[in-house]
Amino acid sequence: MQYQQILNEINQELKVYERLGEIANYIPELANVNPDKFGVHLSHIDGGNYSLGDSKEKFSIQSISKVLSLTLGLSLVGDSIWNRVDVEPSGNPFNSLQQLEFENGIPRNPLINPGALVMADILITNLENPKEDFLKFVRKIAGNDLIDFNHKVAHSEAKWGFRNGALANLMKSFENIKNDVNEVLDFYFHQCSIEMTCQELSKTFLLFTNHGKIPETGETILSSSQAKRVNAIMATCGFYDEAGEFSFKVGLPGKSGVGGGIVAVLPKKYAVAVWSPRLNEKGNSYLGMEVLEMLTTKTGWSIF
Amino acid sequence: MQYQQILNEINQELKVYERLGEIANYIPELANVNPDKFGVHLSHIDGGNYSLGDSKEKFSIQSISKVLSLTLGLSLVGDSIWNRVDVEPSGNPFNSLQQLEFENGIPRNPLINPGALVMADILITNLENPKEDFLKFVRKIAGNDLIDFNHKVAHSEAKWGFRNGALANLMKSFENIKNDVNEVLDFYFHQCSIEMTCQELSKTFLLFTNHGKIPETGETILSSSQAKRVNAIMATCGFYDEAGEFSFKVGLPGKSGVGGGIVAVLPKKYAVAVWSPRLNEKGNSYLGMEVLEMLTTKTGWSIF
Amino acid sequence: MQYQQILNEINQELKVYERLGEIANYIPELANVNPDKFGVHLSHIDGGNYSLGDSKEKFSIQSISKVLSLTLGLSLVGDSIWNRVDVEPSGNPFNSLQQLEFENGIPRNPLINPGALVMADILITNLENPKEDFLKFVRKIAGNDLIDFNHKVAHSEAKWGFRNGALANLMKSFENIKNDVNEVLDFYFHQCSIEMTCQELSKTFLLFTNHGKIPETGETILSSSQAKRVNAIMATCGFYDEAGEFSFKVGLPGKSGVGGGIVAVLPKKYAVAVWSPRLNEKGNSYLGMEVLEMLTTKTGWSIF
Amino acid sequence: MQYQQILNEINQELKVYERLGEIANYIPELANVNPDKFGVHLSHIDGGNYSLGDSKEKFSIQSISKVLSLTLGLSLVGDSIWNRVDVEPSGNPFNSLQQLEFENGIPRNPLINPGALVMADILITNLENPKEDFLKFVRKIAGNDLIDFNHKVAHSEAKWGFRNGALANLMKSFENIKNDVNEVLDFYFHQCSIEMTCQELSKTFLLFTNHGKIPETGETILSSSQAKRVNAIMATCGFYDEAGEFSFKVGLPGKSGVGGGIVAVLPKKYAVAVWSPRLNEKGNSYLGMEVLEMLTTKTGWSIF
Repeated sequence: MQYQQILNEINQELKVYERLGEIANYIPELANVNPDKFGVHLSHIDGGNYSLGDSKEKFSIQSISKVLSLTLGLSLVGDSIWNRVDVEPSGNPFNSLQQLEFENGIPRNPLINPGALVMADILITNLENPKEDFLKFVRKIAGNDLIDFNHKVAHSEAKWGFRNGALANLMKSFENIKNDVNEVLDFYFHQCSIEMTCQELSKTFLLFTNHGKIPETGETILSSSQAKRVNAIMATCGFYDEAGEFSFKVGLPGKSGVGGGIVAVLPKKYAVAVWSPRLNEKGNSYLGMEVLEMLTTKTGWSIF
Repeated sequence: MQYQQILNEINQELKVYERLGEIANYIPELANVNPDKFGVHLSHIDGGNYSLGDSKEKFSIQSISKVLSLTLGLSLVGDSIWNRVDVEPSGNPFNSLQQLEFENGIPRNPLINPGALVMADILITNLENPKEDFLKFVRKIAGNDLIDFNHKVAHSEAKWGFRNGALANLMKSFENIKNDVNEVLDFYFHQCSIEMTCQELSKTFLLFTNHGKIPETGETILSSSQAKRVNAIMATCGFYDEAGEFSFKVGLPGKSGVGGGIVAVLPKKYAVAVWSPRLNEKGNSYLGMEVLEMLTTKTGWSIF
Repeated sequence: MQYQQILNEINQELKVYERLGEIANYIPELANVNPDKFGVHLSHIDGGNYSLGDSKEKFSIQSISKVLSLTLGLSLVGDSIWNRVDVEPSGNPFNSLQQLEFENGIPRNPLINPGALVMADILITNLENPKEDFLKFVRKIAGNDLIDFNHKVAHSEAKWGFRNGALANLMKSFENIKNDVNEVLDFYFHQCSIEMTCQELSKTFLLFTNHGKIPETGETILSSSQAKRVNAIMATCGFYDEAGEFSFKVGLPGKSGVGGGIVAVLPKKYAVAVWSPRLNEKGNSYLGMEVLEMLTTKTGWSIF
Repeated sequence: MQYQQILNEINQELKVYERLGEIANYIPELANVNPDKFGVHLSHIDGGNYSLGDSKEKFSIQSISKVLSLTLGLSLVGDSIWNRVDVEPSGNPFNSLQQLEFENGIPRNPLINPGALVMADILITNLENPKEDFLKFVRKIAGNDLIDFNHKVAHSEAKWGFRNGALANLMKSFENIKNDVNEVLDFYFHQCSIEMTCQELSKTFLLFTNHGKIPETGETILSSSQAKRVNAIMATCGFYDEAGEFSFKVGLPGKSGVGGGIVAVLPKKYAVAVWSPRLNEKGNSYLGMEVLEMLTTKTGWSIF
């Protein structure tokens, strides 16, 4: 498969696309990004690397970090996490209080905000130095010690994150948050502020292509069955209220973030990261969705 | 009208009633109250006073205080408060996040928790020493300088009030809370902790029987039109999800609290307070509802 | 009290009002009415009659008929109707399926569409010739044999009433509709198609001013306690999602219809009907609300 | 891969399982089925056939038929069907009126009841003899002229299907049902009444394993891209409110029915049908879920 050629074709075809969508503006730090940044990086499990555009520029991975906190939670405490968070798609906007209230404080899945807050709570309980230890974990699976939080972004979130405060307090009232609400929010805002390039992000997600082992080191992070389940959750829950649309058009497990990043994996083959900050009305990268649809169409490979 | 005789008849008839209902137990301080306490006091606008049982014993007025914060808010800033809180019955449990989310952070009315939190926020903005000044206001309309907060109860609430924290954070995310969330909650928990006897409570609510003037001093607190509107809100919204039932059976504007108190007014005639801590499943005093139904049936007078 | 003089003042003041609001257009027959029709009639229990404008012109009473079917249901089968319909305000649009689904097919009150459909079902079960017998009943309390259905309007409703069909089918699935769904809908559409003038409507509602007795004949239709309860339901539930607003501004029990009619009662004094087909966004007559607010302000009398 | 050996192992391991779950009893005809029936059939795209138990006994495929009506709809009118039904998981019980009301009569996906009713409506519009033509289509992809409706089951549904009546009427009120409601319901109840054996069902679903071509005849029913999309919809929406759980545990696109059948496909490899009438609380076959989890675990193959 000539991946680089396919990426080049995609790049060519995108030239006629209008620059649709708006940048996330609820966090000042995100609003300052150039909306027309665009990068792609595909990391193949066999070692191949293919890229386009601004693929070596850092961006805020935001909600994509939820897959990483889920992974660390699973590797630390195993299947008991499923007592505190479900695995069903939400069918409602990603931060819906209504659904959480109806379901007695048990979030529908770990990739929506309340689910990620519960995962943050679990990590705080199980880590000695939660933020530092989480960062170490991410650096390990990324094989890259330079990955870091952006404290300014974390601080911006903290200031405006009253809706996350509402979610955390509601779950605390149902006793599904064990630690102090502010500590949970602080961890969560930091986790979301991690910055990566497309290249770093796709390399990191090779873990889920490779049955839970880090390809470079061979270290097992998740069992084969756990890795399969993380992929299943990405496939059904990774795109807020557009999970079905992504599955329908692209046909790969994946996760998006409001920073404009999307990462997707084809098990046993590759992980691919796209970054384009303009978002569609559901909060997913407008061009990111297009690029990945083109990629699976042109390669003829998806999970379906 | 022989009010004392009617109260005595009611007392007699209640003797055969089973002691149904449970005491509120989510706050330790409230859970320690003797569930079989029972008091009634009727204050007539012409000066008459009639009572039964533990009518001179203090209890926690809890949500009844929402009528008093609404009254102070109205008297301070007038009709502009209606830009931040509506006047419609809620049709949902008193602390529903779902409805608040659906209605973009504007509470349905000032007598449900989110509405009272908005009133607290308005008072904090408009008072120099919010808690002290609110207490002074209550003492003035009660004509009684001994009325006070119960700080232990306020502290209990603060510890368990995560759902109120969720409501306040959600409204803050919609910019309908202007002050610091913790300051708003602290004010709210103190306001709810005020203690009064049945006698003090019924005397205080003569204000709403008397077109907004304190009968004893003649001081005007609300315009006649404002007082009428507070009564209208009590009539449609005063009993959580049982407002219709209270209107249907009793036919008076009123307000209940989880401490087991209920106060009701017959405009131009009387205010009456009942205290019995056992609550029905909707959170209103079981016996309190019964006593007031008997009272309006025996007197033949209601607003309908 | 110089009622006619007050009505004349109101008429004078209304001249500067803009003609706001839209006519109901979901039924072709209603859409053809002149939107600027305007009539008022006040019937006093002492026999006085006062009016303005088009007070002797017939209009479609629509949802106002729900009070009449409730009255007949209560008089026929008594308090057992409360097993099948509740008495709480709805806090949701008048035809919400969501709430009905959540509450297992028990409508919140008899004045929203699903509640009226249950009343229709009860009447069909308890009357020999349901539509004819209902009409006879209305003629009796109206003291007027010329009152009739408008079959064209009833037929229009039947054609477009799929949402009512959804409500009836949903309640049937919960076994809270006993008769054939189409028969229930047919009865309901006919009941809503009744036509009255303001004069006829206010005279009819004197029943609720007079403790359940027809003033003209002295016949008892409802017990005093039942009449009081119908008033209480009108006060908390008579204006869809604007019941609180009406109570707040006007302070009388009442009921509106999408034909632009509103009727309200001041117990022991009068019933008043207003007709103006332009509706506000909540579906209540725009001018009707204004006129009644002026009336209670100018007379200084409301139930509060 | 020794499929038959794997099936035999599964059969052996199941012997210690308790017989949990209840048979669907809302339709008398389904309630009469022996709850302990159990069959499995796996049809491999290379022609292999492997089975267990009652695999040649007919059962009511019920909601599994929704995949077939979607397929016929797609093949007849193409992507324009997506204007009338979405592709998102529902996050609510399969027949939720609430969500449908909130989303203005556009069902979340074609595999929940309202979505299937819209597909039925589309088929009625586009087929000359809707029921007969649909049956012919199913017989063609099944390669079997003996497949038929069970009219008794269809009639049972019609009698009790008031909730489907509510859904259809609600969508009609939003103009998303074009034909007569009763005709749509009649079509839908017939489609659900189709009976197949496990062997017939797995053979029929080879279509989705084989990129939209009938393996036996080579006839193209769906384009490769359309077939991929049907699989994506089964993966995210095929199991009511347990789609995530199925994806998580089994990792195959699939569809269940209240008759106790489940069919799943591994693209390019096989289709497998399981029948066991005892349902879990989400309405999916209890043993069916277990068998398929074992199958993908033992083979080591899933889409993830």
